Amino acid sequence: MLTHFHRIGIVGKFGDPVIAPTLTELYRFLLQRGHEIWLDSQSADFLDTPSINGLHIDRLAEHCDLIIAMGGDGTFLAAARAAADHEIPLVGVNLGRLGFLVDISPEQLTNRLEQILEGHYKTESRCMLHASIFRDNVEIHRQTAVNEVVVHRWVTPSMIEIVTSINGVYLNSQRSDGLIVATPTGSTAYSLSAGGPILHPGLSALVLVPLNPHTLSNRPLVIDDNVEISIGFGQTRQINALVTCDHLEIPDVLIGDKIVIKKADKMIKILHPEDHDYFHILRSKLNWSVG
Amino acid sequence: MLTHFHRIGIVGKFGDPVIAPTLTELYRFLLQRGHEIWLDSQSADFLDTPSINGLHIDRLAEHCDLIIAMGGDGTFLAAARAAADHEIPLVGVNLGRLGFLVDISPEQLTNRLEQILEGHYKTESRCMLHASIFRDNVEIHRQTAVNEVVVHRWVTPSMIEIVTSINGVYLNSQRSDGLIVATPTGSTAYSLSAGGPILHPGLSALVLVPLNPHTLSNRPLVIDDNVEISIGFGQTRQINALVTCDHLEIPDVLIGDKIVIKKADKMIKILHPEDHDYFHILRSKLNWSVG
Amino acid sequence: MLTHFHRIGIVGKFGDPVIAPTLTELYRFLLQRGHEIWLDSQSADFLDTPSINGLHIDRLAEHCDLIIAMGGDGTFLAAARAAADHEIPLVGVNLGRLGFLVDISPEQLTNRLEQILEGHYKTESRCMLHASIFRDNVEIHRQTAVNEVVVHRWVTPSMIEIVTSINGVYLNSQRSDGLIVATPTGSTAYSLSAGGPILHPGLSALVLVPLNPHTLSNRPLVIDDNVEISIGFGQTRQINALVTCDHLEIPDVLIGDKIVIKKADKMIKILHPEDHDYFHILRSKLNWSVG
Amino acid sequence: MLTHFHRIGIVGKFGDPVIAPTLTELYRFLLQRGHEIWLDSQSADFLDTPSINGLHIDRLAEHCDLIIAMGGDGTFLAAARAAADHEIPLVGVNLGRLGFLVDISPEQLTNRLEQILEGHYKTESRCMLHASIFRDNVEIHRQTAVNEVVVHRWVTPSMIEIVTSINGVYLNSQRSDGLIVATPTGSTAYSLSAGGPILHPGLSALVLVPLNPHTLSNRPLVIDDNVEISIGFGQTRQINALVTCDHLEIPDVLIGDKIVIKKADKMIKILHPEDHDYFHILRSKLNWSVG
Repeated sequence: MLTHFHRIGIVGKFGDPVIAPTLTELYRFLLQRGHEIWLDSQSADFLDTPSINGLHIDRLAEHCDLIIAMGGDGTFLAAARAAADHEIPLVGVNLGRLGFLVDISPEQLTNRLEQILEGHYKTESRCMLHASIFRDNVEIHRQTAVNEVVVHRWVTPSMIEIVTSINGVYLNSQRSDGLIVATPTGSTAYSLSAGGPILHPGLSALVLVPLNPHTLSNRPLVIDDNVEISIGFGQTRQINALVTCDHLEIPDVLIGDKIVIKKADKMIKILHPEDHDYFHILRSKLNWSVG
Repeated sequence: MLTHFHRIGIVGKFGDPVIAPTLTELYRFLLQRGHEIWLDSQSADFLDTPSINGLHIDRLAEHCDLIIAMGGDGTFLAAARAAADHEIPLVGVNLGRLGFLVDISPEQLTNRLEQILEGHYKTESRCMLHASIFRDNVEIHRQTAVNEVVVHRWVTPSMIEIVTSINGVYLNSQRSDGLIVATPTGSTAYSLSAGGPILHPGLSALVLVPLNPHTLSNRPLVIDDNVEISIGFGQTRQINALVTCDHLEIPDVLIGDKIVIKKADKMIKILHPEDHDYFHILRSKLNWSVG
Repeated sequence: MLTHFHRIGIVGKFGDPVIAPTLTELYRFLLQRGHEIWLDSQSADFLDTPSINGLHIDRLAEHCDLIIAMGGDGTFLAAARAAADHEIPLVGVNLGRLGFLVDISPEQLTNRLEQILEGHYKTESRCMLHASIFRDNVEIHRQTAVNEVVVHRWVTPSMIEIVTSINGVYLNSQRSDGLIVATPTGSTAYSLSAGGPILHPGLSALVLVPLNPHTLSNRPLVIDDNVEISIGFGQTRQINALVTCDHLEIPDVLIGDKIVIKKADKMIKILHPEDHDYFHILRSKLNWSVG
Repeated sequence: MLTHFHRIGIVGKFGDPVIAPTLTELYRFLLQRGHEIWLDSQSADFLDTPSINGLHIDRLAEHCDLIIAMGGDGTFLAAARAAADHEIPLVGVNLGRLGFLVDISPEQLTNRLEQILEGHYKTESRCMLHASIFRDNVEIHRQTAVNEVVVHRWVTPSMIEIVTSINGVYLNSQRSDGLIVATPTGSTAYSLSAGGPILHPGLSALVLVPLNPHTLSNRPLVIDDNVEISIGFGQTRQINALVTCDHLEIPDVLIGDKIVIKKADKMIKILHPEDHDYFHILRSKLNWSVG
């Protein structure tokens, strides 16, 4: 066995028994090829192999050369965030429905993986965001996001006033339901529902998308990703806001807090089959037909 | 006189006598500083100085070290396109209403220009687009655009079917009223009316914005500007299309023609006062107030 | 035979041989039931029955109690406009792909039609628009529209300035690519691509939708359909505009012309199977799935 | 004194001393005309007249023939909701900034009011919504709204799945941040920020506007206001939702609850100066200028 991906981690869709058959097929395939295989604890339960030991998803990356995420884009995001510090490459396998990130279908599973494990693949790097919450100039929370960081109004139906600066230069104050800062990866997720554009994954850019802004000309803004975005609140009344990083919540953000968003130092490395075609996935996911 | 901008060209708002007082002030100011001054032929008529000789706007750049465009953003675009081949830097002066490109106001005219001519300025580079129309593999038209290249349906109220490839890879076929390819400079012009995002001018990106697409998920796509965009038509019925580069028209584009859009080799060089603030202009032009 | 729809007209998709099998089935079914059958001239050619005589679509309504439109929504529109003056009821048959107006599928053809011809149907009334072009206070064109009347910029890539009044009260002047005035029927057609809302067909309302307006707060306006909408132009430069009624063109509208749009006196009467469900068609046509 | 509006109630902007001068002017004007005057308790404090007795806003309508709301549209909404059961007519006075509902400016105050009190006015009726929350078929909350009823996701950043029926007929299931049901009055408020159309106040219609829906073709739907809208949730996971009626909150709505929205029996009666012009207000509030 000559592949440089000897030790392989598998992250399955969280707690969903539907992964069992494809997981079993994948396990046997890798076993046969002589790989050392690690599973996340949840997925280990779905494999009918009592001897296998599961590992917490956050510890997988320490033991592996490659991680295979099996499920939807959400599963891939969870695996990517867990592997982020180690910059381990990831491969995405879907369960029958193409995702933006999980581009290998079950029926092509062994065929496509074989090619990748033999070294025939395209590498793609995707940036992540790093959000910090500062209270009285002390960082009280930090979190990583692959798709987006969102500042939401919270426990109030009233719009909040969000004050944004970029690299220390005042951008604007907007009354809205919140503000999304999305990566190209996130541009086809929540940001798209909120009226944001699609950012090609090869672009070194971020998009700021206001959520239902009071001022109708307050439109999405695309900026270079090499910036520091600083977000505060303009209210004088006490409010609470919520910050989310993908689907992780940082609640109870206070009116005097400051949210600082930057590109993370580490990138996600995704391995794709050599014929990977982003535009094909776009057409498929967004139901673009000829007319 | 030590400035390296000795020979200065002036391009005024096309045929509009409203420029006369500010033009006269500018002319005297430059004369006093000992500059060699050239005017475009139209503007020369509005200057009460019989001795001055006008030059066709396309020839100004050959004789000048710096061009001052005076009017609205449209005047600046015309000057920029005319100066494009020579990469002469431009300065924009408005006539009382701030523009995205004409950021010096008449009341600050001499003060701001003095600073710039003394060497105190920020330089900004903006990309241009280059569009070619090919018929039977022969290039039959070529044109440069600062804001956008647009493919429109023409002499038909029916939607057209536009087939787009990027770097030779098929993107999509869309039925719509047309397709905008806009630079960051153009992102705050027609593209914004059609639902496109704002692209920060520092971003090396373009945006493709469909015009009233039949498929509602056909949303603006932001891509790196280092690409070749190829646009054809999917119709079988004979149609005519119109291609515009800013406001220059290339009519009678045929169904078998191919439109190829690339970033132009040359960049526009804009000189700004040192306290230039793009976000301030954005807030002002889009009427963003606190809420 | 007791049905009150004795004489039946058939309008097929214009010049498309794909209708032949379903048309033949329909013809035989109606013949067997003893109906008097008339076809539009185009469709008559696709029927392998030399004895049948085609009639121009505009004359069908004079001879029939009911018209069956077979094709897509476009075919239905053409039949409806042709039958408008006589208020003959219409039934829509699709060719395998559900339309908003053609809601009977080929596989249910005889079954559904039998029910309708036996008197088991729901009647729905849809309004039409009537557009008149006035030059020097003389009406020089008039046309009927089922979906929408559109005022477009024409032979110019520049936005036009459209001045609108409703019942003689000034609404606004907008710079844009044009203005759509759509019926509820038209609200799911071009108007939807331009950002308009869906109007339930039971609503006595029209929607005005600007096409890519320069002012971003210029949003769709829904008004009662019992109004007179008057549209003129604010330009001083000579321009040409185009007015379309559905897909019929009235070109060469001049800057001094006035376009007056009112609800037509006559309504379209559509017969639906008794289990007709507009929301089902909406979900199907707009690809609304659970998530 | 012959006017039929003898007893007049005044509702001022909640707790804002800025109303004092205009309030004093209004009070003196009405006193001079011999009216019986009642103030809401908050406003009474701002009037330098120790003898005046304030009344709780909810009880004002019982004692008055006319209510004058002074402040912004929010103040008018509060007064309208409080007066709803008694169908007392309302007049809106702004504090210097035109509102959709408060159309009399301070500088025209006595002049315009005199006309209205002398019987020279236009009456406009605006519908309200009535929302009920049902748990296990028992109505546990009910509330009235002038602008809109909104179902929001609550204490979760994940989209919720909202299942809507109209008059008992299933409309759709949508994953989104929530759903707005707005009156024509509310169509220029939150609904507009969320992408809804403007509904002319004379229209007997409501608009359903999804908040950032996952499915991009899930667009605003305008329906007759004589319907019963029933909203439930499609989730299987336990979620909490929030229902708001204008800015009044009904939190802790459960996944099994049903929200039923209908037009309220009572209408709001607004009295306007005879030259009242809705389109003028629209142009002013939405910053529609000529271009």
